[in-house]
Amino acid sequence: MPDDIHAFIGRDAFAKFIGVELLDVGEGRAQAQMAIGPHHLNGMGRVHGAAIFGLADLAFAAACNSHGPVAMAINVSINYIKGVTEGVLHADAYPVSVNPRLGTYTVNVTDDAGDIVAVFQGLAYRRREKRGGEPQEER
Amino acid sequence: MPDDIHAFIGRDAFAKFIGVELLDVGEGRAQAQMAIGPHHLNGMGRVHGAAIFGLADLAFAAACNSHGPVAMAINVSINYIKGVTEGVLHADAYPVSVNPRLGTYTVNVTDDAGDIVAVFQGLAYRRREKRGGEPQEER
Amino acid sequence: MPDDIHAFIGRDAFAKFIGVELLDVGEGRAQAQMAIGPHHLNGMGRVHGAAIFGLADLAFAAACNSHGPVAMAINVSINYIKGVTEGVLHADAYPVSVNPRLGTYTVNVTDDAGDIVAVFQGLAYRRREKRGGEPQEER
Amino acid sequence: MPDDIHAFIGRDAFAKFIGVELLDVGEGRAQAQMAIGPHHLNGMGRVHGAAIFGLADLAFAAACNSHGPVAMAINVSINYIKGVTEGVLHADAYPVSVNPRLGTYTVNVTDDAGDIVAVFQGLAYRRREKRGGEPQEER
Repeated sequence: MPDDIHAFIGRDAFAKFIGVELLDVGEGRAQAQMAIGPHHLNGMGRVHGAAIFGLADLAFAAACNSHGPVAMAINVSINYIKGVTEGVLHADAYPVSVNPRLGTYTVNVTDDAGDIVAVFQGLAYRRREKRGGEPQEER
Repeated sequence: MPDDIHAFIGRDAFAKFIGVELLDVGEGRAQAQMAIGPHHLNGMGRVHGAAIFGLADLAFAAACNSHGPVAMAINVSINYIKGVTEGVLHADAYPVSVNPRLGTYTVNVTDDAGDIVAVFQGLAYRRREKRGGEPQEER
Repeated sequence: MPDDIHAFIGRDAFAKFIGVELLDVGEGRAQAQMAIGPHHLNGMGRVHGAAIFGLADLAFAAACNSHGPVAMAINVSINYIKGVTEGVLHADAYPVSVNPRLGTYTVNVTDDAGDIVAVFQGLAYRRREKRGGEPQEER
Repeated sequence: MPDDIHAFIGRDAFAKFIGVELLDVGEGRAQAQMAIGPHHLNGMGRVHGAAIFGLADLAFAAACNSHGPVAMAINVSINYIKGVTEGVLHADAYPVSVNPRLGTYTVNVTDDAGDIVAVFQGLAYRRREKRGGEPQEER
């Protein structure tokens, strides 16, 4: 499973493109990080909300796919708490509730001082086939 | 104002990096688009939820900053409706409710067939100074 | 259909208990209202967020069940914009996106002055059987 | 503080009306419960989403006001996981992130079997005066 999920995340072109790195994953949890660069900033010189979302989303995807069946996000709610301009951002994803069809995860994004930057809550729908099987198109 | 907001969005390095283009903005509304490329895909070969978020977020930022004062996202909730793999994604942001301190906007993301891909609801906090003024740090 | 949905909503004991009244429903839209009484207030003497939610939720339920199959809420995100203490609250629900399995609706709650009090975004999962059929338990 | 917050919650007419009981509160956490009665059901004979929201919201309000300054909800996102028809529902609220202006809390709602029924994420804005002071109207 760990190899499988690392391979799955390794094919995530967008996460790679924006510079998100998966650190650890297993049993519904995942940690990731992103070193802030100039391409992550918004028009006010702060890290873009969508870049923070991208980091958190990768940790969420790794966490909710670590259980086996293919999981797809159906809703995310994100609260932005603190603006940041530099350093490394850290994401820690953990399960709040997982049943056979729906899983809810929280991802905390923190800065180098350990302050919370954003709180991400993701709801994933878990399909019945395994990764690698032919996905039945539902959406 | 239109020039001002175009300049503001023009400094948005992350939106440029991921390939989001602002088409039109004014009076609380904004349209943007993103031509899907291989760097937008996730491990399943579909457009990444975070890339869709990035497109919607740019339209939201343009719409809520088109009124004047600096607005910052404090919460976003996004529902993912349909998976996509190619073509151009379109975002249309419009105001649902705007008062002096808080603004709520909906952004619909559609594909080339006109189908809804995602629905984004953003809540922005509007600070009292104008863009270009010295921001008082609140968060 | 209109009779069917009125009967369905008529069996909604909680909506009746808190004083929500369905005004109109059809084609994915619904309007409801709630006359504010002392039992709706919170510890600060304002209408309770959960009472506002209850009003909006009834309009959402009516709207998303007006299409036929049984729809169940899987996520709601609500933004509270303005506090209120008296009068009548009005809810207007309309569809943002509806496909065979998922529907997203926005509900605007306004006060007697027409000001937005809250914006509610609901995501419903639409089951395949019709109302009155034996529900297959999925959750 | 515990007395203060109990008095504050004791004035919550809506929570009392729908039958929510505060069990414990302190240091950003709170527990509450609600014994399911016929007035809590929806048109399908299950506990109404708005009743579940009401229980969770009381625990959230107690938790986020346990720190001192008056806190008001600005956004809530709730995921519904499991339908229930009888017994007692339990809510456990805990802080995810609290800074001087914004606090994010998660509330888990469980049934008598210990299964998660709903996950509630609330964002509160903390005003600068203490409870009992004259509130400056911002919304």
